Amino acid sequence: MLETKVPVGISARHVHVSQADLDILYGEGYQLTVKKDLLQVGQFASNELVDIVTEKGSFKNVRILGPIRKQTQVEIALTDALKLKLAIPVRDSGDLKGSPGITIVGPKGSIELKEGVIAAGRHIHMSPTDAVAFGVKDKDIVKVRCSGERGLVFENVLIRAHESFRLEMHIDTDEANAAMCKNSGLVEVIK
Amino acid sequence: MLETKVPVGISARHVHVSQADLDILYGEGYQLTVKKDLLQVGQFASNELVDIVTEKGSFKNVRILGPIRKQTQVEIALTDALKLKLAIPVRDSGDLKGSPGITIVGPKGSIELKEGVIAAGRHIHMSPTDAVAFGVKDKDIVKVRCSGERGLVFENVLIRAHESFRLEMHIDTDEANAAMCKNSGLVEVIK
Repeated sequence: MLETKVPVGISARHVHVSQADLDILYGEGYQLTVKKDLLQVGQFASNELVDIVTEKGSFKNVRILGPIRKQTQVEIALTDALKLKLAIPVRDSGDLKGSPGITIVGPKGSIELKEGVIAAGRHIHMSPTDAVAFGVKDKDIVKVRCSGERGLVFENVLIRAHESFRLEMHIDTDEANAAMCKNSGLVEVIK
Repeated sequence: MLETKVPVGISARHVHVSQADLDILYGEGYQLTVKKDLLQVGQFASNELVDIVTEKGSFKNVRILGPIRKQTQVEIALTDALKLKLAIPVRDSGDLKGSPGITIVGPKGSIELKEGVIAAGRHIHMSPTDAVAFGVKDKDIVKVRCSGERGLVFENVLIRAHESFRLEMHIDTDEANAAMCKNSGLVEVIK
């Protein structure tokens, strides 16, 4: 009998930063400090916040998620993008080419990001052992049912299987609200 | 062969008002003025705007949809409700009992709505003739597929069949953004 249940992790708008950009935003050599560990090993919500700004709108106090990455990236929901009047693509994390830029403002300085604002494609993290239990493999596309009053089935859900991953489906706030599903609530892989 | 395709109408946050409340918000005997007719016969986006306010947040310039209703009602997305720190139910239009209230501010005065803030339940308007063509009847629950990059299947979609209705599926901005579907885009009833 294959496993089917996956806990949900809802991603609110957030920023990943390179050390070079963090140096500008928070000062030379600044190190992110851990507010809360996330389920994925080594990932954490930092105490550090920035503002993200376009000519048409802004969001204040957007949290930086750690650790440091090679390239700065801003992940927002399409609802957020409409407020900022940005046309953003839905992408897998790190796939930033051709995405719009934005201004990021920290306490010590600001950067003009040339590209890097995306909506994250829905995906499920799991270990290779989980993958066997679910009958899937890395890069498979599956469907996932969220039950309840606002029940729906997400299609085009990417499987990301890696030794370091813990079982968790990542969706953004638009998707969570559309399905009215809660953080850590269980959803069902239906393939 | 049954019909399956339905155009989408995306509902942004909006307000319906009673004449008594409009009298307070815009002045005694005020009449809503038509900015744009909506697809549903007699329904229109008015030129009139109000602010909706809680202790924790607000939205400015929220459009009033006409015509006047018996009871004032505020329809917002769950993303909006989080910003306002309001716990709102998902309801069919007009089913307001036990829903939270809100302050509505107009140019001439403001009202303290005791209840009436909801997220609208997803539904399809259609004529009885459409209902026959789709093989459904009023109050049926169906599933609807939105295709594309962020494809998904909405479950628990209410059929509302009435002589006065034109074929249209109503979803809110969270649902539209989760599915990345556009106004007037076609979705598929799959039952």
